[in-house]
Amino acid sequence: MTQPNDRFLRACRQQKVDTTPVWFMRQAGRYLTEYRAVREKAGGFLALCKTPELACEVTLQPVDILGVDAAILFSDILIPLEAMGIPISFGEGEGPKLETVRNGSDLDKLHVPDPVSQTGFVMEAIRIIRRELHDRVPLVGFAGAPFTLASYAVEGGTSRTFGEILSWMYREPESFQRLLGLMADTVILYLKAQVEAGAQAIQLFDTWAGVLSRHHYREFVLPVTSRVFSALKGLGVPMILYVNGSAQFLEEMALSGADVISVDWRVGLDEARERTHGACALQGNLDPVALYASKEVLREQARRVIALAPQAGHIFNLGHGMLPDTPRENVIALVEMVHELGKKEL
Amino acid sequence: MTQPNDRFLRACRQQKVDTTPVWFMRQAGRYLTEYRAVREKAGGFLALCKTPELACEVTLQPVDILGVDAAILFSDILIPLEAMGIPISFGEGEGPKLETVRNGSDLDKLHVPDPVSQTGFVMEAIRIIRRELHDRVPLVGFAGAPFTLASYAVEGGTSRTFGEILSWMYREPESFQRLLGLMADTVILYLKAQVEAGAQAIQLFDTWAGVLSRHHYREFVLPVTSRVFSALKGLGVPMILYVNGSAQFLEEMALSGADVISVDWRVGLDEARERTHGACALQGNLDPVALYASKEVLREQARRVIALAPQAGHIFNLGHGMLPDTPRENVIALVEMVHELGKKEL
Repeated sequence: MTQPNDRFLRACRQQKVDTTPVWFMRQAGRYLTEYRAVREKAGGFLALCKTPELACEVTLQPVDILGVDAAILFSDILIPLEAMGIPISFGEGEGPKLETVRNGSDLDKLHVPDPVSQTGFVMEAIRIIRRELHDRVPLVGFAGAPFTLASYAVEGGTSRTFGEILSWMYREPESFQRLLGLMADTVILYLKAQVEAGAQAIQLFDTWAGVLSRHHYREFVLPVTSRVFSALKGLGVPMILYVNGSAQFLEEMALSGADVISVDWRVGLDEARERTHGACALQGNLDPVALYASKEVLREQARRVIALAPQAGHIFNLGHGMLPDTPRENVIALVEMVHELGKKEL
Repeated sequence: MTQPNDRFLRACRQQKVDTTPVWFMRQAGRYLTEYRAVREKAGGFLALCKTPELACEVTLQPVDILGVDAAILFSDILIPLEAMGIPISFGEGEGPKLETVRNGSDLDKLHVPDPVSQTGFVMEAIRIIRRELHDRVPLVGFAGAPFTLASYAVEGGTSRTFGEILSWMYREPESFQRLLGLMADTVILYLKAQVEAGAQAIQLFDTWAGVLSRHHYREFVLPVTSRVFSALKGLGVPMILYVNGSAQFLEEMALSGADVISVDWRVGLDEARERTHGACALQGNLDPVALYASKEVLREQARRVIALAPQAGHIFNLGHGMLPDTPRENVIALVEMVHELGKKEL
């Protein structure tokens, strides 16, 4: 039996590691033919999320194919929104479409779902994945963060301008806080259930919060983010906070109670380290587009990320999710490069 | 005859003003019924850009209707790309579609256009606008910055991920620099011609450069931006640099040679001032979505922008372009609010 690989968990806690651990946001995805085959078998994306055995299969693919140091639950951040009472559809090749929530009275139609009875397929997937992983690498659970979940619900999908949710924030700050609070309550129960089912770390994806000013992040988003982390702290698993486009409020993210700040590619990890005063481990931050370059260029970019990162407390990742047509051989090569370039003198 | 209003030009030079000058990016636009009428008369957006008398008419509308302190040439940032040899079409209600430029050999098909013979309608519009303005307020000319022009040409329109242009940057940095250089040459001649035709200030829109890391901004974009400003400096008109999502490289923007840095809403003007060491005047930075709020909230947001701004050297503007369905009465009210809240003790 092989030794469990705990590089990822150790790095989350800023402990010494033999080499830099690496995993990728959206590491199970369309760039893998094996993923596309299972998705087809499932009959589509949402069906794949809701079939625990198949969700397990695609969760394990990157561990087997790439040799990454962590698995991440295959699921979708919109799952809890559907359980809250918001109908969602996924067109082929399009983004999701949601029935929109637009004001305080729409909120009364929503409820905080019971994660075990309403999203039991997620917990079941986690149990199966843990069993199938045999502790080879840890399993990361995840949820969308309150603002990002709210933005899907209010915009009805992805958005370019986020005009609807931002105008709600300006028009009715009280009911906007209620909206974020409802999302936070949902996320807390959902992530607790994931950890109880076996998730060994959790990542909160506040993917779209980068549209906010530092001022509004501090006023509206930091308080609910802190509430989520504070409610989960007692579970004893590392907690990661990711925001795309976070250069304007890295300092605030470090005050959220997260153990790890996941940084997009816009800011160097040396600057991120300085601005967060070493309070958190750092995850990131290769530009996902660098994976389209030659292996020489890719290696140089990976080397740069590692050179700027702290010696202890760095998890290599992308600055955003893997793009659908990323060259697979470069992803495989990147994992090897990180393990080689990240070797520590022990 | 009324006194020429030079608040805007004085603020660009960090000189004392009686009150804060204000204008808005995309102040001539769909939120004005008067604009929509002229656009219809012209037979569409591109036709409107190419008909100097009508371009003049919509340029003057916000001066008459809103009472802003500067007019900005009505045109489109893609005009010089078309003149370079890139076919462009505008569908109704959609973004622009361009024939894509994808590699070094595509560059050989492009040329640096002569702005006077190839985009004479722009220069003619400027002459007519200056005549019709009677010096009531100054006229701002503009161009897309090299990276933003390049991103339209390479992506074939607007983009979510900017995967094509970023992967070119990683794959072939030499020809990527040639691409940016070609755009810079075009922009320099184009803006020179605008100033010679009568533009009294110029703004360089690097709208999409916020996708870049500070590191790549410094390596690829700052050098061409500096080259543009340095070539135009002798013309003696204030030069403004705008980037949306610029929190990661405000310091670099201040090194570009711009007289004014136009900041999006994500960073407070106090922080922007500190990070740019007072080297430049600041323009901005109200979130355009704040215009959807009540007048009370709007006033509070405007007050906040002004409170954080420097006493001399602030031009009030939005952090991004006006949204198409912005409530017109709020825009009118905002100009009054700024003039009232921005009053200086002389």
